[in-house]
Amino acid sequence: MHSISQYQEFVTSHFNSLVVSKEPINLYEPIQYILSLGGKRMRPVLTLMASEIFDCNYAKAMQAATAVEVFHNFSLIHDDIMDDAPLRRGKVTVHEKWNINTGILSGDAMLILAYQHFEEYEPKIFRELAKLFSQTALEVCEGQQYDVDFETRDDVTIPEYLKMIEYKTAVLVGAAMKMGAIVAETSQENAHLIYEFGLNLGIAFQLQDDFLDAFGNPETFGKQIGGDIIENKKTFLYLKALEFGNQDDKEQLMHLFSIQPNDNSDKIETVKTIFNETGASNATQHAIKEYTQKAFDTLKTMDISEEKKQILYVFGEKLMKRNV
Amino acid sequence: MHSISQYQEFVTSHFNSLVVSKEPINLYEPIQYILSLGGKRMRPVLTLMASEIFDCNYAKAMQAATAVEVFHNFSLIHDDIMDDAPLRRGKVTVHEKWNINTGILSGDAMLILAYQHFEEYEPKIFRELAKLFSQTALEVCEGQQYDVDFETRDDVTIPEYLKMIEYKTAVLVGAAMKMGAIVAETSQENAHLIYEFGLNLGIAFQLQDDFLDAFGNPETFGKQIGGDIIENKKTFLYLKALEFGNQDDKEQLMHLFSIQPNDNSDKIETVKTIFNETGASNATQHAIKEYTQKAFDTLKTMDISEEKKQILYVFGEKLMKRNV
Repeated sequence: MHSISQYQEFVTSHFNSLVVSKEPINLYEPIQYILSLGGKRMRPVLTLMASEIFDCNYAKAMQAATAVEVFHNFSLIHDDIMDDAPLRRGKVTVHEKWNINTGILSGDAMLILAYQHFEEYEPKIFRELAKLFSQTALEVCEGQQYDVDFETRDDVTIPEYLKMIEYKTAVLVGAAMKMGAIVAETSQENAHLIYEFGLNLGIAFQLQDDFLDAFGNPETFGKQIGGDIIENKKTFLYLKALEFGNQDDKEQLMHLFSIQPNDNSDKIETVKTIFNETGASNATQHAIKEYTQKAFDTLKTMDISEEKKQILYVFGEKLMKRNV
Repeated sequence: MHSISQYQEFVTSHFNSLVVSKEPINLYEPIQYILSLGGKRMRPVLTLMASEIFDCNYAKAMQAATAVEVFHNFSLIHDDIMDDAPLRRGKVTVHEKWNINTGILSGDAMLILAYQHFEEYEPKIFRELAKLFSQTALEVCEGQQYDVDFETRDDVTIPEYLKMIEYKTAVLVGAAMKMGAIVAETSQENAHLIYEFGLNLGIAFQLQDDFLDAFGNPETFGKQIGGDIIENKKTFLYLKALEFGNQDDKEQLMHLFSIQPNDNSDKIETVKTIFNETGASNATQHAIKEYTQKAFDTLKTMDISEEKKQILYVFGEKLMKRNV
């Protein structure tokens, strides 16, 4: 087994060697651009790690890992158009640097390119990977649609919210790990369990993202603290506060999430106080622990050595102890 | 073998039975909408026809045929956004009926749904179909990008234009037919030849579309006569007129293709006269015949019965004799 940072190096050097700058240049240059912006490459790293967990050389999983990362970047391009986002990883988004049409078409090409990375595998594995990929990609689209729908709804329930983050974010984490299992040709049961491991860790991770957005360390959290509050985003914290709060809390919270003041500092502080006093913060931390535990529970019946289980356990613990 | 109109019925009834109206409704309703607009369903018909040409029951090719048609409709949704088109098949386009974000996301979902239709085939055929599909889909994106690029270029060459229509339109016709061959498990050589048959017929068809847009029968041609001239579209006719015309012709044509008068009737008449007098019309008709002949030439070495060859020949002849 290699370390996470070693997998990151493998992925990075592989992406540096990918040549996608061919004709027509206006189609491929934006693809090269978004792929060069980097990021933590967490999804492909998980594919490589999972392949070695199931006793396969990581190199065999590289094409599947690449497909996952190319797909993820496709979704970033199209999501950024839909969210009208000016920046991505500190750099100008594709549709801002070029235009919306370029963002649409280059994104489309990336979705197809992702599938092509499976072509180096033999028919049986190819089919399994492509099937999992299609199902996952469709769920990611559905998750994005739910997210868009929720913006204009004020009756979103906690189960609906959990389904949205599961589809929009967590299924790709589960699929990334399962692809490593498929390439390693481990048992169906192991492949299923590592998917559940990734899925639940993905949900926990996203809930933690919601939590840290309000309560993270401003010096280490990558984004602006309170960003979700400023944007009136109905996160798990918000929905739990509405569930637990008294009539006054609810009215105040709903009012605060209907305004967009020039100076947000008072709004952020008041909302955070409500999140704490209603018990929403505690409930969120509890849910994070619950989903993390659900991920760890899959290790009990996974047919791998104790050392390998320990590696997955330590990885999960480390991921969930971040305050950045 | 069945007739074209029988294949059309099979495809239509299959599409009527397709249920894509699931949750989230805002994602799947636009998909249901565009698929219900109909059209001639020419691409899936060609897949079914090709499967029977190679002695396979058409029903086995239905999922591949569906994939081709779903992909084609995906490309219509995204192209209509890029072209800012208000109407498609006489009905409001998806992004006009909903909005651009819906058009992007529902289109993405359709591209994935197209791949899923291959999943009913066994691994070896699945892989062949998906590979051909990815390559073709990517070429269609490249063709669309060339088309966009050409709008702002005034040095487009004839070979570049031919490559653009080949990628944007003809490769999908070739691939539709080859998919029927793959499903029928005919020889590699036959699969290659039917691809070339479809590809060349597709190019001829598109060139004929250019020609009929200017010289078609206004009573039977589906679109407005002179539509390309009104939109200053650099078609094969235009590029050939620039190639053959004298300095006066060129200057007049380039001037006419830089203006947008309120009343287009004079412009259309003058341009058509230039197309005729420079020999551009004749050259276009010659090119149509050339590509049609190239398609028919593939029949010489195709390993099928003379009756089957006759069916493909008659189909091609009929397609190329249309004046609508």
